[in-house]
Amino acid sequence: MASFLITGSSRGLGLALATRLASLPSGQVGTIFATARQDNSTQLRELINASSGRIEFVGLDVTDKKSIQEATSLVEHKLQGKGLDYLINNAGAVDWNPAGVEGMENLNEMFNLNVTGVHEVTRAFLPLLRRGEKKSVINISTTMGSIAKAHLYAQAPTPAYKITKAALNMLSVQYAQQYASEGFTFLLISPGWLKTDLGGSRADLSVETGAEKAIDIVLKTGPHQNGKFVNIHVPGWVNANGNNAYQGKEIEW
Amino acid sequence: MASFLITGSSRGLGLALATRLASLPSGQVGTIFATARQDNSTQLRELINASSGRIEFVGLDVTDKKSIQEATSLVEHKLQGKGLDYLINNAGAVDWNPAGVEGMENLNEMFNLNVTGVHEVTRAFLPLLRRGEKKSVINISTTMGSIAKAHLYAQAPTPAYKITKAALNMLSVQYAQQYASEGFTFLLISPGWLKTDLGGSRADLSVETGAEKAIDIVLKTGPHQNGKFVNIHVPGWVNANGNNAYQGKEIEW
Repeated sequence: MASFLITGSSRGLGLALATRLASLPSGQVGTIFATARQDNSTQLRELINASSGRIEFVGLDVTDKKSIQEATSLVEHKLQGKGLDYLINNAGAVDWNPAGVEGMENLNEMFNLNVTGVHEVTRAFLPLLRRGEKKSVINISTTMGSIAKAHLYAQAPTPAYKITKAALNMLSVQYAQQYASEGFTFLLISPGWLKTDLGGSRADLSVETGAEKAIDIVLKTGPHQNGKFVNIHVPGWVNANGNNAYQGKEIEW
Repeated sequence: MASFLITGSSRGLGLALATRLASLPSGQVGTIFATARQDNSTQLRELINASSGRIEFVGLDVTDKKSIQEATSLVEHKLQGKGLDYLINNAGAVDWNPAGVEGMENLNEMFNLNVTGVHEVTRAFLPLLRRGEKKSVINISTTMGSIAKAHLYAQAPTPAYKITKAALNMLSVQYAQQYASEGFTFLLISPGWLKTDLGGSRADLSVETGAEKAIDIVLKTGPHQNGKFVNIHVPGWVNANGNNAYQGKEIEW
């Protein structure tokens, strides 16, 4: 009965991750803390209402230290002395800069949300994670954050997304190094190109598939994957060239 | 008679880069714009006074858009219709977080200085660079910004430096992709571990050696190195294990 906390769960992948977790047996998945800046998502509210108390809403703005502190206190109270097993840092944003990198006006804001937000949430929840059984922090990244693969994404007008996710990758590795000796697992997952508001309608996969495959990885992870960056595994998927971009392998930095 | 602009040239590597450039024949190196936040560096002032007008001071705070705009206008005026050949984005800072990543309080400030500062300076100078012969932008990075090599630097208590330099690397690649067709060269150089305020006294190399070897790369670069990340070449240097960490090769991301 592991416990989970997901940031940015009002829509998109975060909502789908909460949905997927709640569909699994309660012997495997215990309390799911679905967090979002505001409690105004009809979809999340319906999911929570249908979850028989398995999903709990927690207000959390990852760019607001006071909000993070309040969320930490609330989760600690709700866990009644137990630890938090899995923290899934999913909250984040993508930019859209058709003028390319030269037109990029929002880099500091994107750093604050996509990287510093993860840092602040992670360090705030470390004491609860230490008390957990799994000590796992999952950071949702993207193959677009791989500098080695940047040539594949040259046409995507999202420079701040790519830059901040490369930074997130290094942040994760720093945490992985520092907490390896305590049995922590810090894992970066690329959930695939998903049909969400962020990914758009031309994306490769449904958000449900991305969430299912990401959770498959989460539930099997452990210290052997500490500091790694992995892709989801979607057997049989092929792109227009007949290649499967989702083979569950490690992604180059 | 190429022209150069160096950010952060009041001390350390930036001062040494200006010194090295000014030591080269005037047929090879023309005007050197040595920029810094404030005109209060005795060393830079002495260098400028001894340079017979080859080095010109330009006030430039890379975190202040108004300052960047003023510097751009001043440099444009001084170039009298000619373009700027080389922009060397050297200004930056290192953090010191003995408590490791968990104690990191300065990540946003470091992003603003080490990444957004480079972005703002680069895009402001693009019009002048377009008019230049070399169209070269050199971004000073570090092997500590390589995620693939992070295991080598696990003990260095500078998480924000590592994270922001990984982000700078991706920023450079974004510029390289966007301006390749215009003949630009965006090159990341790791100048080595240098005995500066930033590097400390236990560092591998003198700042003069780092600057000399970095300038060797700068003067030979061109579109074949666009989007690359290279180390300096110091023939014969060996560490305690008998290995040469400065072989002038490309650095993994």
